[in-house]
Formats: sequence, C-alpha cells, structure tokens
Amino acid sequence: MIVSALLTSVGINTALCVLFITLYSILRKQPSNYEVYVPRLLVKGTSKRRSHFNLERLIPSAGWVAKAWRLSEEELYSLSGLDGVVFMRIITFSVRIFTFAGVIGIFVLLPVNCWGNQLEDFDVANFTSNSLDVFTISNVNSGSKWLWVHFCAVYVVTGFICVLLFYEYKHVSSRRISYFYSAKPQPHHFTILVNSIPTSSSSISDSVDSFFKELYPSDYLSHVVVRRTSKIRSLLNDANNMYKRVARLQPDPNKQKIKNGAISRLFGRKTNHIERYEKMLEEIEENVRLRQSEASLTGEARAAFVFFRTRFAAAAAFHLQQSVNPTQWTTELAPEPRDVYWPFFSESFIRRWISKLVILLVSTVFTISFLVPVVFVQGLTNLSQLKTLFPFLTSILTIKFVSQIITGYLPSLILQLFLQLVPPAMEFLSTIQGYISHSDIEMSATTKVLWFTVWNVFFATAFSGSILSMTSVILNPKVIPGKLAIVVPAQASFFITYVVTSGWTSVSSELFRIFPYILNLITRLFKSPDDEFELPYMPYHKDIPRVLFFGLLGITYFFLAPLILPFVLAYFCLAYIIYKNQFMNVYAPRYETAGKFWPTVHNSMIFSLVLMHIIAVGFFALKKLSLASSMTVPLPILTLLFNEYCRKRFLPIFVGYSAETLIKKDRENQNDPTMTEFYNNLVDVYKDPALVPIQYSSNTNSLSSPLISPA
Amino acid sequence: MIVSALLTSVGINTALCVLFITLYSILRKQPSNYEVYVPRLLVKGTSKRRSHFNLERLIPSAGWVAKAWRLSEEELYSLSGLDGVVFMRIITFSVRIFTFAGVIGIFVLLPVNCWGNQLEDFDVANFTSNSLDVFTISNVNSGSKWLWVHFCAVYVVTGFICVLLFYEYKHVSSRRISYFYSAKPQPHHFTILVNSIPTSSSSISDSVDSFFKELYPSDYLSHVVVRRTSKIRSLLNDANNMYKRVARLQPDPNKQKIKNGAISRLFGRKTNHIERYEKMLEEIEENVRLRQSEASLTGEARAAFVFFRTRFAAAAAFHLQQSVNPTQWTTELAPEPRDVYWPFFSESFIRRWISKLVILLVSTVFTISFLVPVVFVQGLTNLSQLKTLFPFLTSILTIKFVSQIITGYLPSLILQLFLQLVPPAMEFLSTIQGYISHSDIEMSATTKVLWFTVWNVFFATAFSGSILSMTSVILNPKVIPGKLAIVVPAQASFFITYVVTSGWTSVSSELFRIFPYILNLITRLFKSPDDEFELPYMPYHKDIPRVLFFGLLGITYFFLAPLILPFVLAYFCLAYIIYKNQFMNVYAPRYETAGKFWPTVHNSMIFSLVLMHIIAVGFFALKKLSLASSMTVPLPILTLLFNEYCRKRFLPIFVGYSAETLIKKDRENQNDPTMTEFYNNLVDVYKDPALVPIQYSSNTNSLSSPLISPA
Repeated sequence: MIVSALLTSVGINTALCVLFITLYSILRKQPSNYEVYVPRLLVKGTSKRRSHFNLERLIPSAGWVAKAWRLSEEELYSLSGLDGVVFMRIITFSVRIFTFAGVIGIFVLLPVNCWGNQLEDFDVANFTSNSLDVFTISNVNSGSKWLWVHFCAVYVVTGFICVLLFYEYKHVSSRRISYFYSAKPQPHHFTILVNSIPTSSSSISDSVDSFFKELYPSDYLSHVVVRRTSKIRSLLNDANNMYKRVARLQPDPNKQKIKNGAISRLFGRKTNHIERYEKMLEEIEENVRLRQSEASLTGEARAAFVFFRTRFAAAAAFHLQQSVNPTQWTTELAPEPRDVYWPFFSESFIRRWISKLVILLVSTVFTISFLVPVVFVQGLTNLSQLKTLFPFLTSILTIKFVSQIITGYLPSLILQLFLQLVPPAMEFLSTIQGYISHSDIEMSATTKVLWFTVWNVFFATAFSGSILSMTSVILNPKVIPGKLAIVVPAQASFFITYVVTSGWTSVSSELFRIFPYILNLITRLFKSPDDEFELPYMPYHKDIPRVLFFGLLGITYFFLAPLILPFVLAYFCLAYIIYKNQFMNVYAPRYETAGKFWPTVHNSMIFSLVLMHIIAVGFFALKKLSLASSMTVPLPILTLLFNEYCRKRFLPIFVGYSAETLIKKDRENQNDPTMTEFYNNLVDVYKDPALVPIQYSSNTNSLSSPLISPA
Repeated sequence: MIVSALLTSVGINTALCVLFITLYSILRKQPSNYEVYVPRLLVKGTSKRRSHFNLERLIPSAGWVAKAWRLSEEELYSLSGLDGVVFMRIITFSVRIFTFAGVIGIFVLLPVNCWGNQLEDFDVANFTSNSLDVFTISNVNSGSKWLWVHFCAVYVVTGFICVLLFYEYKHVSSRRISYFYSAKPQPHHFTILVNSIPTSSSSISDSVDSFFKELYPSDYLSHVVVRRTSKIRSLLNDANNMYKRVARLQPDPNKQKIKNGAISRLFGRKTNHIERYEKMLEEIEENVRLRQSEASLTGEARAAFVFFRTRFAAAAAFHLQQSVNPTQWTTELAPEPRDVYWPFFSESFIRRWISKLVILLVSTVFTISFLVPVVFVQGLTNLSQLKTLFPFLTSILTIKFVSQIITGYLPSLILQLFLQLVPPAMEFLSTIQGYISHSDIEMSATTKVLWFTVWNVFFATAFSGSILSMTSVILNPKVIPGKLAIVVPAQASFFITYVVTSGWTSVSSELFRIFPYILNLITRLFKSPDDEFELPYMPYHKDIPRVLFFGLLGITYFFLAPLILPFVLAYFCLAYIIYKNQFMNVYAPRYETAGKFWPTVHNSMIFSLVLMHIIAVGFFALKKLSLASSMTVPLPILTLLFNEYCRKRFLPIFVGYSAETLIKKDRENQNDPTMTEFYNNLVDVYKDPALVPIQYSSNTNSLSSPLISPA
C-alpha cells in the first residue's frame, strides 16, 4: 500500500467522521429523536419532547462536544456510577500512553525507519508514492546500529506503560474502596447466595434456617429461597405481548374526533378483537396467578439468598467453606438486587461445572471456526483474485480509486459487519454458562469477545493462513517469535487502515445508535406517545473489548510501524468525546460493579506488552541483531513479574472487601435506627420479579400503565 | 538385555535383601544398637539398654516382620499420628493398584506381547536367552488387532486407579476431619501468624494490639511479636558446643576407680582445660542473656502470632483480607508450636516473594544441570564406551558375569548415590524460601525432590540425550507423544532393573539406617551413656518422592512392559513391612499436618496416568493403529476432569476447616473451665526457644542435664 492510498482512506474516513458528527448534531436537536439521543435528559425533565420549530434546529452546532469534553470525573460519577468512570479511565489512560508513545514513535523512530533502505529508499520528491513499508521498521537495514534506538524505545515505553498501569490500578482500587466507604447500606453487602443446598426430609427453607441459625446465631437474619419460575416467566412474556397487542388496537382518544363512518365500521371490528384479546389476557393472567402460588408452595430450587446482620458476617460466610463437604452449601457474594439474573439458577454444583466446561468448549470452537469469513474477507483484498472470480468486474477494478477503496476499505467493513454478531453471540453463551448476575454475564462476555477479537482479527489476519498452519504454530511455541516477527510487520499497513476505517468510522457512527433509531422510527408508528420508555444500558461487553483491541494494536505496532500511533491516538480522542457524550445523554447504569472489570483491562494491557516483546525478540533476531534480541528477553519476564506483583497488591481489592473496611462500615451503622427497616426490606428486594403479583384490571384506562408493577 | 541378565540381577538383589534383613534381625537385638534400631521402645521403657548375653541374640528371627505386618491402622495412628497413617496408605494403595494391574499385565498383556514377532520370536526352548524386549509391547506386530487388548487394558486400569484414588481421597479427607473433631483444643487452631505489619510511630506490639482489638473486640485474645534472634541462636549454638566439650573432658565417675598415677597427671591438665572452657561458657552465657534482653526490648520483627478466643474467629481472620492494602497485615494459619521454623521470619511481603522466586529459579537450574552425572552414568552402561575409555579393563569386561553386573547394577547404584544428595539440597533450598514451619519446608522439599526425580531419572534417562535436544522437545509439544512412544519403551529393561536394584536394595538397606548407625558408633566413643538422645524424625521429604516415583514407573510401564509389574509390587510389599517397622520402632512424629500431603500424592498419580496416556497415544500411532490412538485421546482429558472434580470436592478440606466444623468444636469448649488456662498458655507455647532463659550452673553435676531447658 502506498501513502496516497492511505491518504485517500484517511480523507474518506475523516470526511465521514465529520459528516456523521454534523448529521448527529442536527438530528439530536429534533425533538422526535430525543428518545434515542438524549433519553436521560428527557427522564430528568430538562428537555421537553415537543418544542416549536426554529431554524437553529437545522444548523449543526458543536456545543455538545465542548460540553462532553468538559464533563468532570465527579459529574460522570454521579451520572454513570463508578463503572462509567472506570470505563472512561481506559480511554484517558490510552490517550496518555499513545501521546507518549506517539511522540517517541513519530519524532524518533519514524525518521530512523525512513533513513534505512532495506526495502527501498525514501522518496522525498514524490512523497505520496512511497510505500507505507518505508515507514516501518522493516526498512531499517539488517544488523544496523540504528535498531538499538528501537530497542531503547521498547524499554522506555514498556517502563512508562507499567508505571502508568500501576498508578491507574492504584487509583481505581482507591476509588473502589472510597465508593464502599461512602455508600449507604446496600443489600448485597449483607447478603450471600447459597447454592447446592443438600436436600433432606425438611423443606429447603427449613434447612437453610436451621443451618445458618446453628452457625451464626447472632448474625443470621433471614433468607429467601430461590424458586423455579421459568414457566411463569414465559407466561408473563405472553401476557406482555398480548397486552401490547391490545394497547395497539386501543382507540387513540386524540385521534377519535377526526374519524368518519368508514373508519367507525373498521373500528367496530377492532373492538371485537380487543374484547377477544382481553379475554385471552385474563386467562393468561389467571394462569400466572395459579403458577405463582404453586411456585411459592413447591417450586423450591436448591439455592437461597441468606441475609446477615453485618457485612462482616456475610463476608466471613462467603470466604469460609461452610459445610464439611465443599461441594455443598457453596457460597458466593450476592449481586445487587437489580443485577440478579433470575432465569438461571442451576441447582447442583456438578451441573453448573459441566455447563461451564461445555460453554468454554463451545466458545473456543466458535472463536476458531469464525476464521472462515475472515479468510473470505482477506480474499477480497486481493485484486487479482477478485478479477478471476468476477471477470466482468475487471474494467471497474482497474480504476485506481475503486481499487483503492476495495483494498483499503471494503475488507474491514465486511469484517466489521461480521464482528457485530459476536458480542450478542458471546453474551448468549455467557448467559447459559450459569452466572447469577447480569454483571458477571457481561464481564464473562467481555473476556470472550476480547479473546475472540484478538484471535480472529489480530492473529488470524496476521497469520493469514489455514487453521492447520496455525495449529502447527501453537504446537511449536519456539518458532512463535520468529513467525510473528515475519508476519506482524507485513500486516502493518492493513492495521493502519483498520484503525482509520473500523475505528474512526465505527466510533463516530456509534453516535447515531442506528438500531435504536430505526426501532424508534418503527415503534413510533404504533405506540401512543405517552408510553413509558426504558433507558438503555451501557453495553460494556461490546465496547470494552473494542477499545482494548485498539490499545493492543497501538502497543503491538508501536515500534514496528510508528505511523499507526497518531491514528490510534486520534481514535482514542474521538472515543473520549463520544463515549462521554452516549454516558451523559443516553445510557443509564444497569448495575454498579464498582469498577470490577479493571483487572481485565490491566491483564489485556500486560498481554499486549508481552506480545510486543515477543515480536521484538523475534524481530531483532531476524534483523541479525542477536544481542538486542537476547537483551529483550528479560523484558517480558520483568513485565510478568510486575503483573504478578500487581495481582498480589491490588487484585484482592476487586474480589472482596477487607475486614478492616467491612467492620468500620458495620460500626457506622451499629446504632442507626433506620437499619431495622433496612433489614426488614432485604427479603423484599431479593424477591424474584416473576413472583410479584400482577396488577391487571379490565379498566381500559389502566392499559397505558405498565402491566407488571416494578419489583 | 536378556532374561538371564535380569535373572542374575534379581538373584543378586534378592540375596542382598535376604542378607540385609537377616543381618538387621541380628543387629537389632544387640543392646548397643537399640538407640539406632528401636529408640522408641527405649524411650517407652519396654526395652532395656543392657541385658545379659544370650545365644538367641545371634540367631536371625522373623518375629518383627510378622509384628510389623499385623500392625493395625489404629496402632500406627497412636504411634505416628495421622501423617504416618496417610504415608502408609500410599503404600497399601500402591499394593492394591499393582496387584490389579499385575494380574492384567502378566496374564493378559504378557502373553499377547510374546505372541507377536515384530522384534523377534519368543524362544520357548531357550527361555533365558530371550531378550527382555520380547515381553514388551514393542514385540507386538504393527497394526495388529492384538493391540486393542492393550487399549482396553489402558482404559480398565485407568478406571480402576481413578475409582481407587477417589475413595482414597475421601478416606483421607474424612480421617482428617475426624482427627480435628477428636482432638483436644490445639494452640494452632486458635492462632494466626500476621506478617508485613506496617511500621508506625508506636511499637509493633502496640500496633498489633490496637489493630486486632479494633477489629475483633470480643474474639481477640493476645499476641506474641516475633523477634529477631538469629544472633542469639548462633550464640546458643556456641554455648552448646562448648558445653559438649566440657562434658567430654569431665571425669567419668564410673571409671575413676581404675585410674592410676600417670592418668592422674593427665587428668590434672584436663582440669585446667575444663576450667578454661567453663569460663568461656560463662562468658557466652552472659552474652546470650544480654542479647536476649536486648531482643525483648528492641528486636521486633514485623510479624506476630495473634491468638483468638475461638477457632472460627482465627479462621475468619485468616480467610479474610485484613487490611485495605492486601500486602499489609497478611495472615496465614499458624503452624503447631513445635512445627514453627523460628530462624526464618522474612519481614516484608516483597522480600518473601522475591526469595521465593529466586529459590524456584535456583532449584530449576539445579534440577536441569544435574543431568551431567546422569549422562556420565549412562555412559557406564555402554560397554563399548567403557572399553574405549579404559582399555586395560577389556579383559575383565568380556567376562559375562562382570559385564552383566556393570550393565545391570553399577549404573543405577552410582545414580542412587548421587540422588542421595538431592533431598538435603532441596530441603536446604526450601528452608531459605521463607516458609514458617518445618512441615511446609518438608512439603515443599517433597515436591521439589519429586519433580527432580521424575525429570532426571525418568525423562533424562529416557531421552538419553543432550540438554539441547530436550529443550527442543519441550518447545515442541506436538512431537512429545511420538518421541515418548519411541524412547520410553526402549528404556523398559533399564527401569525393570532399576526397580530391582534401586528399589529393593535401597528399601531393605533403609533398615540399617546406615548413617545414624555410624554416627552412633562414633559418638558412643565420647559421650556418657546417660546422655539424653532425641528420637529421629521421619524424613518424609526423602521417602514420599521415592515411593511415588516407583508408583510412576509402574503406572507408566504398565502396558508397555508388564514384566515390571511383579517387581514393583514386590517393592511395595517390602516397603510395606519395612516402613511399618522405621515407624513402630524408630521415628517419632515431629509435627502433625493431619495428612496434608495427600493432595501431592493424588496429583502425582494423576500425572503418571496422563503421562501413560500420552505415551499410549504416541505408541498406538507408531504401531499404525491410528483409530486406537485417537480413541485414547479422550482418556487424559477425562482423567484431568476427574482430577478437577476431586480438587473441588476434596482439596478445600486440606486447606482449611469448614465453618460448620470450627463452630461445632468451639461450642464444645464454650463452657469448658480448663479453657482459661489454655488461653493463658498460648503466649508461652509460641515463644521463640532462643528467648527462653538458659539454665547454666557451675555445679558440675548439672552438666549432664541439658544446657537449654525445653521450650
């Protein structure tokens, strides 16, 4: 790929970005789009849905960009909780890294690379016709002393990133602790989830009561046995759908006055339908009530939420093995009430373990077999192959602009579309893996998507080969540095355009929230404007892996192809504004894990560093500078030791709270008179929503209120 | 190697075994050897040190064999504690495995192997001239259907071993729990060791007091700060040596009556010496007192034993992270008071971590560089090489008997001598690794010695090559099954003789306790017969790896060379008698870990099984029976899953006790009036022996009592 092709791509994508941002700044001002673009403001009541038309609404403005940029960490915290803050820290942290690495890369490494002439001489006169390879390390002559500059850069940047990682981990940890200190009493701090309760002659509820009363007579409070409610849940679903159908057929009182006779006849037929559906709805509702009372009597699962009087007692019950048999009475920290994933309470220890193993196997197979479309996409980048496959295209493909688009843009676009399928698929897999909370499901999906992306986008395109050759590489770890050193730099230009096309465009098109927008357009045709709408939740499992992957690309290519750095930096700056905005206006926190996903972020950075080191070892050897190669070997070892230290120093803070912290908080609430009420409420907040009585009334006016009362 | 050579080796070693056992049965009856051979009986007082001479003392007897054989598990428990029982279960368990595998191997696999003629035909007429290879699987024809018999045997024996492993783990777990239930209140159940106490303006002792009083006001009892006593310890050592010197010069009152004039003159000079030494001893003693009071005032280390009123509180304090900073106030379960390894209390978290890493590195390097003598030993097995090196030996080496001894016996004898150095070396390394108890040091040394043995004896001899070729194998895991399948069967005859020579002979020569015997002979020349002597401790770190290694050999070779099975079985039967006997009469338990080393045993068995499966996969492929090869692949996966299940089901029981167990025991002692005294004693039992005041008196009579009072 030559510079002009890159410039074309950058031009197109910058134009697209600007277009998207301009379009967005107009669209967001249309009141009809408020539901999609500023739902938070709507809910808060600061924006009204209807306003008079004025010209200003059609002129793009940049006020929101400045507003997003200025949003402080504390404001973000109040909007999106600690999770939002920690998510934004991934981006600010990346901005810092790539500013530092970018300065070194552009002002030190890039000139060195251009100076070499291993591949070809740098053509100053005809700048745009230079190959991108001229800017990569491959252009430095074999055995050249200049490679020591790269060697030093690797050490310096690794040191910088590690120091930053340390302070970032420390910061997030201390935020997590201060979050805990400042929080009001929260139900999940007093609660554990007990699983694999052994069945005995008495009921599960009695077993739990006697077991915990025996062990913790002064600290045990009460419990709620989890009940099997999957059937009720599907019935409730039916009821909900039926309700929507009735609501849609319901005459709109605003429009009634303009109806004429013909429509009245049609309306008469409608009324018949409504009556029939209402009857069906009543039947379903009766059924739900029956099932609910059934479940309350007999449908005990072998799991229960157990409540304690103090946080310390709950933590002790979680950390200590409860029963003599470690596979019975297994305990875990309870999730927040709103975070509980009710549909899945696998009952036995064994069944949960097996489902976990099966899902791990399935997701591995899925990750590996996904190569097929990737290889297909790679075929597209090859012009000659296209010409062979579709001979009629030959004349078009010879046009320079078209061929540049095809090689530079189409492949990653198609790949991007395929990749859109991955997060939902991985989330589905995590859902059936047996996690008990939405946050755990998302965290697990995050890890899966991340590995998926690293494997499929990075390794598979880098190795650009069949599954077989990759398997042989895995089974032959000694050759990995060498192979990586050969194939990774060769893919540099692909990844530079990938950052520009897939990074810039996708992050700015995020603004539009295309699917919600279309959905909004469709539903607005049917529903009454006074319908309640829910705030969307931040899809961390989709966004964290994406952001981290661009970080991985930047770190891995930092010394191989420093040209990538400004583009990565630009990506993160864009992401900074845009994510701060889709937090400020759109997403509501669904739960609060208090930044529990930071260790994943930390680990993936360490992975990127070690990957970079391995490639450096292989590359210096390839360039016949074996001293530098062997002197790089300590670097991954030191990095892993650093990681091990961080794991010991910070990771426990993300697993549970310390005795000191818990007891201090418990003391605070010791003489709090409101605690009695809090204790009494615990049983209610951990009630399965499927067991809450449904409030349905045949009074048509009430149809516009939600069928199911909030839990 | 041919059958006659094996028979020679078996003959020699059986003869040696019988000779050893006969000699032992005479030697043990000599009262002068009681200290070495039956010290426990001496201490118990059932055997007297002096008895009149009678003829019976010179006639070998087998009564002790029957006595050892009949010793029940309960008797063993009362003698050697649960550790002794669990150690013996390794042997009985192995006897069971190899009885089952032996029946299948000898009656099913061996005939199949002889039936084949891949290598050579089985020569019925001239039985002793058959090569041992005829009895191995290598003799079965490639692609033969008979290999399916081996395939089935692998599945059946794996299943049998796994079932046995499961019940054994279950048995040991339940013994461990019932041991805890039946035990009297034990100091270490109420105690944790706190490390990395942050330094502040107040003393460590005050910090500990305020920290734990704040956190556990009702359960915290008291504490003992660990003090730096390494200098005192070396002074005490000096004092002890000086004391011994004085004692040696002291006139023996029994012998005084036969002294004549000349000796009296000599004795005059002796008295001068005694006076001088006594003065020096007094000086040292003064110094010790000074240092002791110094240490009590200022020598605080950043560690303390913290005592709680209940076992549950101690366990909770161990399981929960105490401080907000996970690297401060780190807790671990306290060892038994007699098990504490006082010399080493590394103070900071970081220093301990680094020393652990360094030691791991050193022991790995030691393990790998130990190959040099192994390779040398292997050279010895090669007759032609010997003839080249020492041409003058040619005539001797051509004698059949000599050459058989050299190929069959000498190599493993030399190897054995080298290997004797390993357990002390590994124990030394574990000592400086930062463990706080003797049992942890021994457990760690056990693991190190086991890996050492497996790597050096099994892999290094099997791969019989340079370090380089081995490294390339490690870095190329795909070829491992194939390589193992080629080299392991080829070494079958070596390992058969290894079991006979190294196993049989060494286990029966164990009876003699050669080094203690020689030491006893020497010290008896100097010391007075009324000196106290200490019971020796069972060297688990030496014996467990050895026993496990023979298990590994048996399992790995079970289907490759079934001929090894009767020899392994014979080894375990011998070991059964002999170990039951070094427990009944000799060793005293130094500490009680309640069978904590069983997981190591379990894991090494699983390792053997998986190794066997990997070899099977490679071997069936080599024999062109790819269906069997790929059908063996699920077996290691299933075995590892089984192991994972056991890890979840049983391992927690070996890490800590469950809340249920702890609270039940605490209830028992709740109203026990003796507990107050027990609580008061806790501070004393965890006192560093180096800080106990020394009782030295110039009264010469008291010199025969120990200088240092027991802690």
